[in-house]
Amino acid sequence: MPKIVMLGTGLIGRFYTMAIHGQRSRDRVQVVYSRTAERAQAFAAEFDIPVWTTDLADAIAHPDANAVVIGLPNHRHEEAVQRCAAAGKAVFCTKPLARTAAEAKRMLDLVERAGIFHGYLEDLVYTPKAQKALHAVQNGALGKVLWTRSRETHPGPHSDWFWDKAQSGGGAIIDLGCHCIEIGRNFIGKQIRPLEVMCWAATQVHPIEAEDSAIGLVRYADGAISQFEVSWAFRGGMDLRDEVSGSEGTIWLNHFLRTGFEMFSAAGMGGYVAEKSETERGWLFPVGDELTELGYVPMFSEMFDALDQGTPPMETFYDGYIVNAIMDAAYRSAASKRWEPVEIEEWRGALETDQGQVQREYDAQHWLVKEETMPDGSVKLILKEKTTGRIVQQIRSLT
Amino acid sequence: MPKIVMLGTGLIGRFYTMAIHGQRSRDRVQVVYSRTAERAQAFAAEFDIPVWTTDLADAIAHPDANAVVIGLPNHRHEEAVQRCAAAGKAVFCTKPLARTAAEAKRMLDLVERAGIFHGYLEDLVYTPKAQKALHAVQNGALGKVLWTRSRETHPGPHSDWFWDKAQSGGGAIIDLGCHCIEIGRNFIGKQIRPLEVMCWAATQVHPIEAEDSAIGLVRYADGAISQFEVSWAFRGGMDLRDEVSGSEGTIWLNHFLRTGFEMFSAAGMGGYVAEKSETERGWLFPVGDELTELGYVPMFSEMFDALDQGTPPMETFYDGYIVNAIMDAAYRSAASKRWEPVEIEEWRGALETDQGQVQREYDAQHWLVKEETMPDGSVKLILKEKTTGRIVQQIRSLT
Amino acid sequence: MPKIVMLGTGLIGRFYTMAIHGQRSRDRVQVVYSRTAERAQAFAAEFDIPVWTTDLADAIAHPDANAVVIGLPNHRHEEAVQRCAAAGKAVFCTKPLARTAAEAKRMLDLVERAGIFHGYLEDLVYTPKAQKALHAVQNGALGKVLWTRSRETHPGPHSDWFWDKAQSGGGAIIDLGCHCIEIGRNFIGKQIRPLEVMCWAATQVHPIEAEDSAIGLVRYADGAISQFEVSWAFRGGMDLRDEVSGSEGTIWLNHFLRTGFEMFSAAGMGGYVAEKSETERGWLFPVGDELTELGYVPMFSEMFDALDQGTPPMETFYDGYIVNAIMDAAYRSAASKRWEPVEIEEWRGALETDQGQVQREYDAQHWLVKEETMPDGSVKLILKEKTTGRIVQQIRSLT
Amino acid sequence: MPKIVMLGTGLIGRFYTMAIHGQRSRDRVQVVYSRTAERAQAFAAEFDIPVWTTDLADAIAHPDANAVVIGLPNHRHEEAVQRCAAAGKAVFCTKPLARTAAEAKRMLDLVERAGIFHGYLEDLVYTPKAQKALHAVQNGALGKVLWTRSRETHPGPHSDWFWDKAQSGGGAIIDLGCHCIEIGRNFIGKQIRPLEVMCWAATQVHPIEAEDSAIGLVRYADGAISQFEVSWAFRGGMDLRDEVSGSEGTIWLNHFLRTGFEMFSAAGMGGYVAEKSETERGWLFPVGDELTELGYVPMFSEMFDALDQGTPPMETFYDGYIVNAIMDAAYRSAASKRWEPVEIEEWRGALETDQGQVQREYDAQHWLVKEETMPDGSVKLILKEKTTGRIVQQIRSLT
Repeated sequence: MPKIVMLGTGLIGRFYTMAIHGQRSRDRVQVVYSRTAERAQAFAAEFDIPVWTTDLADAIAHPDANAVVIGLPNHRHEEAVQRCAAAGKAVFCTKPLARTAAEAKRMLDLVERAGIFHGYLEDLVYTPKAQKALHAVQNGALGKVLWTRSRETHPGPHSDWFWDKAQSGGGAIIDLGCHCIEIGRNFIGKQIRPLEVMCWAATQVHPIEAEDSAIGLVRYADGAISQFEVSWAFRGGMDLRDEVSGSEGTIWLNHFLRTGFEMFSAAGMGGYVAEKSETERGWLFPVGDELTELGYVPMFSEMFDALDQGTPPMETFYDGYIVNAIMDAAYRSAASKRWEPVEIEEWRGALETDQGQVQREYDAQHWLVKEETMPDGSVKLILKEKTTGRIVQQIRSLT
Repeated sequence: MPKIVMLGTGLIGRFYTMAIHGQRSRDRVQVVYSRTAERAQAFAAEFDIPVWTTDLADAIAHPDANAVVIGLPNHRHEEAVQRCAAAGKAVFCTKPLARTAAEAKRMLDLVERAGIFHGYLEDLVYTPKAQKALHAVQNGALGKVLWTRSRETHPGPHSDWFWDKAQSGGGAIIDLGCHCIEIGRNFIGKQIRPLEVMCWAATQVHPIEAEDSAIGLVRYADGAISQFEVSWAFRGGMDLRDEVSGSEGTIWLNHFLRTGFEMFSAAGMGGYVAEKSETERGWLFPVGDELTELGYVPMFSEMFDALDQGTPPMETFYDGYIVNAIMDAAYRSAASKRWEPVEIEEWRGALETDQGQVQREYDAQHWLVKEETMPDGSVKLILKEKTTGRIVQQIRSLT
Repeated sequence: MPKIVMLGTGLIGRFYTMAIHGQRSRDRVQVVYSRTAERAQAFAAEFDIPVWTTDLADAIAHPDANAVVIGLPNHRHEEAVQRCAAAGKAVFCTKPLARTAAEAKRMLDLVERAGIFHGYLEDLVYTPKAQKALHAVQNGALGKVLWTRSRETHPGPHSDWFWDKAQSGGGAIIDLGCHCIEIGRNFIGKQIRPLEVMCWAATQVHPIEAEDSAIGLVRYADGAISQFEVSWAFRGGMDLRDEVSGSEGTIWLNHFLRTGFEMFSAAGMGGYVAEKSETERGWLFPVGDELTELGYVPMFSEMFDALDQGTPPMETFYDGYIVNAIMDAAYRSAASKRWEPVEIEEWRGALETDQGQVQREYDAQHWLVKEETMPDGSVKLILKEKTTGRIVQQIRSLT
Repeated sequence: MPKIVMLGTGLIGRFYTMAIHGQRSRDRVQVVYSRTAERAQAFAAEFDIPVWTTDLADAIAHPDANAVVIGLPNHRHEEAVQRCAAAGKAVFCTKPLARTAAEAKRMLDLVERAGIFHGYLEDLVYTPKAQKALHAVQNGALGKVLWTRSRETHPGPHSDWFWDKAQSGGGAIIDLGCHCIEIGRNFIGKQIRPLEVMCWAATQVHPIEAEDSAIGLVRYADGAISQFEVSWAFRGGMDLRDEVSGSEGTIWLNHFLRTGFEMFSAAGMGGYVAEKSETERGWLFPVGDELTELGYVPMFSEMFDALDQGTPPMETFYDGYIVNAIMDAAYRSAASKRWEPVEIEEWRGALETDQGQVQREYDAQHWLVKEETMPDGSVKLILKEKTTGRIVQQIRSLT
């Protein structure tokens, strides 16, 4: 049973703590760390946490806790992981795992050498919709996955440090692309190797050095393509959508702006509407329970169950490392203006993958290309002759 | 901390147990009762419940448990409540509380005389969307609530007993209307007295005696109107929507069919899609996590917290009694074809209520009736002269 | 080929003229009438209309025109129809046809005795969505229609006269209910007799004498129920939705607020967004082409084709009369608080109608009540024994 | 006034003729050409066209017609344009204009040298939604356009020739990308030069040589990015969506699958549901009036008005040429795996374009980076110090 140290008291530390302490949970944060005593103390009081400290080492080593949740700025992840490895404690790290694949690889090596439990807190693959969709895809409801699109765009991050490239490691790609990339990877299949990346990135709006907008394509070994779209310049709230297209079907998920909750208010809601909401009057689109809809509650549930059972969780530091490797390739591509290979030191997935097209036979002589009902009610068939390769069409009347 | 007896192993007992045992929960079902040993044993095995029995009295009196969840057919609620009262155990009863207001009142009296904790398991006011919407309404985001509409329609209930009026007490009104009525009551305000009901009910499709379709209007003391629409003859899945209209705003909730999860599958999902789904291929609309979206998880969370703290929960047997009183009036109205008064033996809410219109002053001489931007960009004002009552219009150009 | 007199230069006269003159149309308004010379002249100039006048008799009798479109306030319809009958000209009258069924019947008698072409300008049954949906329903896509719901609510009408009961004949029912009632009648079938009406009406918000909110149920001879919901107190724009439920299917139409056009603007659109839109910033929901989406263009197309071909149009004064008869019953019911019969002087539809339930046979011994896939993948059947009437259930495993 | 020759009797010729002859139109097709007499004759009979022929030259030269609509396979466009130029007749060509930019340029030169009216039949920029959205963007409702996404995907084209690269010139890019590219160009502004293209293309599903899936990015001189997504392998119908993101707002258009028309049918619609629909039962999403919703009616209206008035239409052969130039670059990029320049022989738009970021000043010392309401109701500001470039944050409490 985890007794938790929470590192960081920003928005993510708050969301994590609320999720962990949530509905009738048996889990508790025992120790909280913040850079300033004032914030640490206030946070401990608010969430009824017995111990607070401004000393990172003390927090991690505290004897009342056996698991550490890292909710710190990106440039402080590696140091925290080092100390967890040294202390032999289970570690859960927020996204992105690191600023670069090299940094991520060092962190992976640390936890694997220390033999400690490690979870990568990629919450958006744990949303109830994503989980059910993954289950359907794994059951074959979509046939072979051909294309995924994951989009996360909003008007920009909450914290000042994230706007500073030195601390964060980048802009919208590092902040949001990590989500989108891992969502695509889950739908396509983690055993399929990501081969190369093409990425456009630009600073379109904000007076910053990092990119505030980017679009990337990740090509996988089985021919699937995975698209990510990220921006800190979107207007209208937080656009959080996933789309998957397969040979047999399609999935569209909307996690935030169109979830069946629509509200018009001339009076205003008097404050907070939803994360990254831009307006308090007019048409508003709140979500029911953000902690569940954004995946925090199911994520910690799965992670802590895994810890209790001594099995690896769905998302580990290895996954975080792969995401960083893909983001590295994205940054290289944005600079070189060509496809760049994904450089993975130690690939643990499938080594060979079938790239083949999905052929449907119509009869002994023909492949079926397409079948459609026409406005006059007849059915038109597009067929390919197996021997000649010629495309022919046939009309079948409805009777 | 509740140690729970679960009465009933049908779909509702299953959903309740899954919700109670769910994500990292500290709560457990200790005893399960079913009419048949086979089902009781299988259920206990599936959900890791230490004790099973086919004896209702034994189940309720079991020394390892201090709280009883009633998931039995409607005609067996009263007997179970009697035993809980006798045993002095906290009791949580599924919806509807009873078949009639008289039965509900007897059950209310039993628990109040025994002084036991009592919760009415009206899950749909606990959905994350309903809770957030209620919060917004209570904060004034919609001004005065004028109209609510709650709709629950699907192709009919799962269990055979529900199709038999003697056991269930009625048809779609008893099964689904109880949800809709209590949702409307929450939005309008529980302190506002429901005065009278007009209801149409018919058996349109199914070969049964009870109504399979009904529409009702409940008029409240403050002038608000609350509409319920229920059917066992809807095609397309389960239509579960709430709408609220106020003097300052509007809320639309869709709990099931349009929640931001859309899927096309030519291959099919291979089995269960969602409660009351009708198709396994083509366009499908699953929900992310039914136990949360239907309110089961947040409901037990609030109820058990209340039990732990010794406070009444949001929904008590008194609420269930009021709902039964409104349903009684609905059945009377369907027969008499006129508005029928809601007969409440002991009204605990407000005794006087302001019915007044919501006036907006335009200037010293006029009330503002309406303001609108026209196609040519000008703004048209409809005003009412305070002294004469005459309606006049003014055009204001945009500049 | 119609040469048109347009009576009235308000918003409806404007929409009508724009629709008639629209995309490559061969039809033209030749004469326009308004109460004031200033408005008549400006309108004629704007729409390139050769003749304008402030004399109603002159306008109708003008030799350059053979067809009259009435876009006047409700209390002036009858007079205009009288003159058209006298002049022997085709007449098209805006909705509602009249303020009462008696007035409507006089107008119907006038046009029938004069033998002139008469069209009832109920645009909302002509929207492209309504037309396609009607076609699907008539083809049997929904089986037997059981329930319709038509909702039109917005913050109130544009023109001052409509807020004055003497001129308009009533409030939201007369203004909006006429649309909803005729939409429901089309879906259920015009040959089916409307038997009785139950209606709630109230003045909830505005400082006026007429009702600003109403909900009504119309019961038809075949057992179908048709629901109308109207309000001048809705916030958020214009809510214009139709829903139809049948024994085999469901239709949901949204004509205005959720049509696949969604826009967030922090800058604002600089003026008109859409009819009855309330906001110019934030999330906005414009419609593509209002004249088409609201049915004006297809309506005049069908009406003028009928005139050219000498056949009656889809909507005649008889339809307008039936709508007024239903509205009369609604007003009576709102006062009497009971169901009121629809009084029709001369019923031209079916005299006998099958009310029967829709039975589906399962096997020689059983009726099928319901079939559903359960969470464990099995299929549960609810059956009714033909001889005993007993309800039984069967479980069928998926294999 | 156009008297029209229709070249081609396939689905597009049918849609064009229906649109031209539609609602009270004054325009008529006078001559129809098809390769086979049987089809020409049947088409002429169906649409009441006086003259039919199987001779292309005769059709174009026919003395009863002054305008030619080209609805032929792609490889026959140039020949038809040559004949129109020779005959001095107005010409309207379906999309794509040509198979390559070189072919398009020759066609452009032909019509310009001949001085004939030329229209490029890009219907999807004429949809009512696209037109209103363009108007809003041009009015500044979105600020500076930063990103556009246009997606057209379906299970593949109707006609056999389109599956043959020699006749069509390519696959999904040539068929669908031409739409998406021109939609993006309209939103960003036609005066802004498209600079370079990055494109991924693959044959993922069908047994053909051309690409059945592609994703491309077009970078414009003002820094905007325009994304196209096309596929012949989408399942679920026709996905036709446009999205635009600007510094001040967002637009989402759905033209086909989610337009406010939702239908469940267990019985089926008995034939045609909508273009590229895959199912006839279950949940269906028809569109109201395809000819309007897909832009055909408004397109011919604008084009013929322009012809009557002697002005160029919104979309000319020059636009078709630019689209072909962008598609050429896309094909080159798919092969070279890098960004490829858009090669335009004669650029007629702006030569210099501001690329600048959109700065918002907070006060004399700071730029405003971002402002957001937090869960506790406070407002967090992210600011950039003008002199140091340092990012700082400030919290402002709500009071």
